[in-house]
Amino acid sequence: MPKKIVIALGGNALGNNLPEQMIAVKQTAKAIVDLIEEGHQVVIAHGNGPQVGMINVAMTTLSREDPSHPMAPMSVCTAMSQGYIGYDLQNSLREELLNRGMDKPVATVLTQVEVNGEDPAFQKPTKPIGAFMTEAEAEEMRRRGNAVMEDAGRGWRRCVASPRPISIIEIETIRAMSDAGQIVVACGGGGIPVIREGNHLRGAGAVIDKDFASELLAEELDADSLIILTAVEKVAVNFGKPDQKWLDSMTPDQARTYEQEGQFAPGSMLPKVQAAVKFAESKASRTALITFLEKARDGIAGKTGTAICQ
Amino acid sequence: MPKKIVIALGGNALGNNLPEQMIAVKQTAKAIVDLIEEGHQVVIAHGNGPQVGMINVAMTTLSREDPSHPMAPMSVCTAMSQGYIGYDLQNSLREELLNRGMDKPVATVLTQVEVNGEDPAFQKPTKPIGAFMTEAEAEEMRRRGNAVMEDAGRGWRRCVASPRPISIIEIETIRAMSDAGQIVVACGGGGIPVIREGNHLRGAGAVIDKDFASELLAEELDADSLIILTAVEKVAVNFGKPDQKWLDSMTPDQARTYEQEGQFAPGSMLPKVQAAVKFAESKASRTALITFLEKARDGIAGKTGTAICQ
Repeated sequence: MPKKIVIALGGNALGNNLPEQMIAVKQTAKAIVDLIEEGHQVVIAHGNGPQVGMINVAMTTLSREDPSHPMAPMSVCTAMSQGYIGYDLQNSLREELLNRGMDKPVATVLTQVEVNGEDPAFQKPTKPIGAFMTEAEAEEMRRRGNAVMEDAGRGWRRCVASPRPISIIEIETIRAMSDAGQIVVACGGGGIPVIREGNHLRGAGAVIDKDFASELLAEELDADSLIILTAVEKVAVNFGKPDQKWLDSMTPDQARTYEQEGQFAPGSMLPKVQAAVKFAESKASRTALITFLEKARDGIAGKTGTAICQ
Repeated sequence: MPKKIVIALGGNALGNNLPEQMIAVKQTAKAIVDLIEEGHQVVIAHGNGPQVGMINVAMTTLSREDPSHPMAPMSVCTAMSQGYIGYDLQNSLREELLNRGMDKPVATVLTQVEVNGEDPAFQKPTKPIGAFMTEAEAEEMRRRGNAVMEDAGRGWRRCVASPRPISIIEIETIRAMSDAGQIVVACGGGGIPVIREGNHLRGAGAVIDKDFASELLAEELDADSLIILTAVEKVAVNFGKPDQKWLDSMTPDQARTYEQEGQFAPGSMLPKVQAAVKFAESKASRTALITFLEKARDGIAGKTGTAICQ
């Protein structure tokens, strides 16, 4: 039965630099078109960790060499990364569709995602991004109002908050395109983070977790499935221990118990499981799936991966 | 009577750097929303000269400092510039619409524009872009297959071709969104230039003129009007001479006569007039208009600007 599916692509689906990206997106496109070929309605969201870091470094370097260019805010760097990644991704999808005789429009929508300016994450920026700096450069950065942190003895880095997404500004466009049978790439890098100030949207110095942004997208589109693609086929508990166990499925309650046991690594499997639980709890008919990119089709057919549902 | 209008925004509508852009787009949004408020269906295209130059410099500098990042092709830089500009532009439009009580979706579509790999422009790259280089750096750049030129005694620069656009890959998406009443930003920077190779689209080392891309967009959307916004209220002949004359209108034939007299500056007014003529000749009912940003509403009402029609 055809489903409405939101796919969240992780770093391994995109590579760490341009040549890697151009190869990685070809495999990614194959896995996604497998689902489209089976009649599913697919919307694609993706991360941007290495890409937005690279763009931030490039823009910081430019600003240092030529001060007529002020530092580009994170929101602007994320907007650029949506262009950088979306171009390759939509192109690979288009080509793979045509190779299989399907002539469907594919497009990337520049997406802003609202966050709350009062989100406690802003008080405690935890996500290091961009180039390493000297302590003096870090101090200058701090004076300009940015948070900085010493990163594991390797030098200083800017760090940004990772607040929770609360609404998707361009949702109506994404919904209309998807309902018209188009393949949509949206919420790139978790979306351009913005704070609502009356009618104005102010860019936020933050990076939104792409798993939470994808979850929100799936809820707002009333999707049946949220597929979070990652580097493992299934979620494990007691990982690396003698009693390690791969999970075929878990309920939100089971997931929370495992979470309390510290089974999932923060910044890695934890946000994926949390996003999956949020989606599964939002409606009884909804299922989240965590699996390998290459196993997406088998996963949606119930053959592999870890399914999270009520 | 409500019209379907494609607006081509020039550099003055966007500013030369980020702070300038954030101010400029506010004025630009006012002028565009004036037209939306009168009931016109509006699609917006824009240039990216300074922006893609800046991004190209930033990415080149990054690649020089950290060779693990290869040079970003022009197509990728244009994709990034569509994110960089589209984000500010769609935001300003959204805010201005809300300030006037209009709740219309606004979105930017990442747009690829097909060019012909055999376009003679590729044999003669004429558009200088990006940072100045030493002769040695230029030689290295040439060895990697890029064209370079000595730019007016100021140093060496990379230069790229400016081929004519022949089709817009995402046209179906743009049309569907616009017909659904959404405000669409598309073909940023003339579009990401691509060459068709079977089902594959290969990025081209080129920058497409935004006036020609906007003209093609207007034709493919079957627009009534193409408005090319620039730094003068009307087109002039005998500019700066005693017999200077501002033109209220001209036919394609008149425009061609003026062009043969050398009345229009290449790289400035000439492509605008050529694009306007092409649009006016494509159908008897179509009118192109060249005027000031602030005069767009008066222009469409026939009160100012230079109208080009059969």
